[in-house]
Amino acid sequence: MNYKKLGKLLGKIMILEGALMLAPLIVSLIYNESYIHILAFVIPIAALLLLGAALQFLKPKREEFYQKEGFALTALVWIVMALFGALPFVINGEIPNYADACFEIMSGFTTTGASVVTDITALSHSTLFWRSFSHWIGGMGILVFVLIFIPESNEGSSMHLLRAESPGPQVGKIVSKMKATTRILYLIYLGLTALEVIVLLCDKPIPGYENEKFFFSVLAAFGSAGTGGFGFLPGSMEMMNPFSQYAIATFLLLFGCNFSLYYLLLIGKLKALFKSEELRAYLLIVVAAIAIVFTSLLTRLSSLPQNYTTEEAFRHSYFQVASILTTTGYSTTDFNTWPMAAATTLLVVTFIGGMAGSTAGGLKTSRVVIAFKGFYVNIRKMINPRYVPKVKFEGKTLDQQTTNGVFSFIALYFFIALFVLLLLSFDPINGTSVTVVSDAGTYTQTHGFFSNFSATISCISNIGPGFEGVGAYASYAGYSIFSKIVLIFTMLIGRLEILPVLILFSPKTWKKV
Amino acid sequence: MNYKKLGKLLGKIMILEGALMLAPLIVSLIYNESYIHILAFVIPIAALLLLGAALQFLKPKREEFYQKEGFALTALVWIVMALFGALPFVINGEIPNYADACFEIMSGFTTTGASVVTDITALSHSTLFWRSFSHWIGGMGILVFVLIFIPESNEGSSMHLLRAESPGPQVGKIVSKMKATTRILYLIYLGLTALEVIVLLCDKPIPGYENEKFFFSVLAAFGSAGTGGFGFLPGSMEMMNPFSQYAIATFLLLFGCNFSLYYLLLIGKLKALFKSEELRAYLLIVVAAIAIVFTSLLTRLSSLPQNYTTEEAFRHSYFQVASILTTTGYSTTDFNTWPMAAATTLLVVTFIGGMAGSTAGGLKTSRVVIAFKGFYVNIRKMINPRYVPKVKFEGKTLDQQTTNGVFSFIALYFFIALFVLLLLSFDPINGTSVTVVSDAGTYTQTHGFFSNFSATISCISNIGPGFEGVGAYASYAGYSIFSKIVLIFTMLIGRLEILPVLILFSPKTWKKV
Repeated sequence: MNYKKLGKLLGKIMILEGALMLAPLIVSLIYNESYIHILAFVIPIAALLLLGAALQFLKPKREEFYQKEGFALTALVWIVMALFGALPFVINGEIPNYADACFEIMSGFTTTGASVVTDITALSHSTLFWRSFSHWIGGMGILVFVLIFIPESNEGSSMHLLRAESPGPQVGKIVSKMKATTRILYLIYLGLTALEVIVLLCDKPIPGYENEKFFFSVLAAFGSAGTGGFGFLPGSMEMMNPFSQYAIATFLLLFGCNFSLYYLLLIGKLKALFKSEELRAYLLIVVAAIAIVFTSLLTRLSSLPQNYTTEEAFRHSYFQVASILTTTGYSTTDFNTWPMAAATTLLVVTFIGGMAGSTAGGLKTSRVVIAFKGFYVNIRKMINPRYVPKVKFEGKTLDQQTTNGVFSFIALYFFIALFVLLLLSFDPINGTSVTVVSDAGTYTQTHGFFSNFSATISCISNIGPGFEGVGAYASYAGYSIFSKIVLIFTMLIGRLEILPVLILFSPKTWKKV
Repeated sequence: MNYKKLGKLLGKIMILEGALMLAPLIVSLIYNESYIHILAFVIPIAALLLLGAALQFLKPKREEFYQKEGFALTALVWIVMALFGALPFVINGEIPNYADACFEIMSGFTTTGASVVTDITALSHSTLFWRSFSHWIGGMGILVFVLIFIPESNEGSSMHLLRAESPGPQVGKIVSKMKATTRILYLIYLGLTALEVIVLLCDKPIPGYENEKFFFSVLAAFGSAGTGGFGFLPGSMEMMNPFSQYAIATFLLLFGCNFSLYYLLLIGKLKALFKSEELRAYLLIVVAAIAIVFTSLLTRLSSLPQNYTTEEAFRHSYFQVASILTTTGYSTTDFNTWPMAAATTLLVVTFIGGMAGSTAGGLKTSRVVIAFKGFYVNIRKMINPRYVPKVKFEGKTLDQQTTNGVFSFIALYFFIALFVLLLLSFDPINGTSVTVVSDAGTYTQTHGFFSNFSATISCISNIGPGFEGVGAYASYAGYSIFSKIVLIFTMLIGRLEILPVLILFSPKTWKKV
């Protein structure tokens, strides 16, 4: 490990985080919050800027940065950002426990949206802003973002960072130059976010929150763009007007698309756009999942505690499928009470996730498509040993290594999830009950197997809420510190697609070279 | 598809099944059962022998049998055996519904042990015998068994059958001649079964069942040998004396071992035996799982409804780990009430299963070991692209294709399980309640997500009981016919390791050639 170079690069990230934290500080000032709320940002900003600047005095003996180091840096960046990003919550006392605060902000940066907050109405504007803003920062990937700010990084090392960072098995190179690519991606991201804010502003305000219209629109857009899912009102997006709910769900689906498709759209290559196999598979999954969930709700309409109208049943089906498939985790209703077929469908799409090259988590549509093609080819090969296997995806023949990488990834994902599930099973929370108040009424929810299972899947897929004890109207607050730390790493493993986090735990990474 | 050859081979299997059914017929005569119980076996035996003999008049134009046809035959054999094997239950009226009866006997032949019987005490001796005997038949694999009886089959086609049949990624060739191999395997199987019967006969009889000592010992041994798990007393093995419980658990672990290890033992190659990586991994998993389950029970001893003594807690931990890891499914206590850590540990070992080349189901120890080595190699390769990957297992370097086959298998296993879980979610049983009477008392159990999840995993891993609504003291009776058919195929997919069943559904298989 090139320690000095690592320190210098981390220092730059810290300066950047300090700069980004000025935004919630300004929010705090605008809303005339108490001095402790202002200090909650001033102190970490000062610490980040000073430490970051001090680290710039390091003189690395060599400038090269190996792939392994790039992976380790990627994981470290998220951890350092979380360690400092958690400070405001502790200082202003709104999440007094530091481990809880780290969980919350890691959930933010990894765009998971799993929360330990039990009373969202008790949070200040600056805290709400910082939580949602962390989704937006995390969404596009701090490092893609950061690339622009690290002028000396050569193309090679950027590639390594991007490989660790961008979600999905392969990054469609939009233009050859890396920095130009990141700028374009960033502009698309910014543009879509701004568009969502404008669309949400067109809706009438939420009754009782007339003054918060702009603030809430921005927060909702931040959470959508990063496919994060932190709420800012009781019951997530339940209080939003139907127009906004439809709009948010649609933007979620847009943010779940591979961003290179927008570039194709911008340069007018519509034919190539519609030829995208991943897009077709994605749309097919969306339509099929909505159809199953909606039908399942319709058949049980009268027995559901929420008394949905047909329109409501459709809207919630549309919203929840969009929210869960894109691994956002916003909710408009308590889907914990939904029929098993609807719940299981949501769980299946959880595993799939959004498209590669989007801000979504999960296995990714392209991996699932490649896996299915790979199964077909493998089976044909077993039937006929002389058959020469070829997996084609997006018009290109994939080499054996890509297909095998996908299988290996899915298998590893599966084993990691099993391991996390086992670790959560030791938590004293198991078997305890919690009272849930939602649009389905007030009921008692026991923390059982489904809670741990959905918490595991939800965190590794970067969704946020799960079922039962970690449902959309419950929280992760009840887990022990140990479980929270396990889940912090699970979120990070999911976000960084396993490898960078595993490399962090390898002693070889830390050998001085 | 070479239809005539297929018909002729299936005919031989039918004759064989007819011959095997003479055993329960004799049991029925010994116990002086009513004429309907005798007819229940006489009718299917007559049908099997006549139809089987008639099929021998087919004159295939070619004698060769391709690999693809071998796979399809394998799957068809199990289906045909189940379709006829279910008849006795329907005729004697003990499982009147034909779909239920097919579920029960397929569960028997696949050595799953999932049952639709709600009152085991209502079953006749001949029915109990046929259920357990089906485990024993299925355990070693009908086809390994059958190989001896198909004299004209050439080495090539036998290989194909064996490849589809024998569980695990690779069959350790014991001796070069296929038929000699199967005879040795069969003798080991027979010897171990006989040994278990003898050991169980050394125990004092179960109070109230003094006359059944020999009968029960044979049934328990049948269920152990096949790692099947059908019970014959209320509460599975709960009423057995502690000595028998320890003995059965130990035999289960023995039947979960790769049978080629016994051959090494017989020919005195002890060094090679102890060098087996798979054996070491298997023992490590057994010890670790027992340690976790036992510790978890100890910490909650006072709050468990069963009021275990420390010895009981250890015995049940030992028994349940042995039973679930070897995918048998016998139980000595209601583990549905166990702490989450114990339950989750059982679930994790469920996925692993026994060793390759044993009668156990699941992913198999060797696959799990190879997968972990593969992950390590893949990660090293990603860190250092010049690294030449090599996965060594049992002293041999595995070719890339084996490792990738393992990854592909695990990924496919995962997707099939997800699909089955989705299909079960449509069942009207979801949300209904059932009253369970066990050593933990009488309580109500709601059929929730954990029920479907554990039913899926339990059937694909050929275990039998699961948790909640399909726990060891409940049954699969409540599922709809549709779900039962889904689970029948899930059991078959698990037992035949996916491929043969999938080939059955391919139109190409049925093209006339």
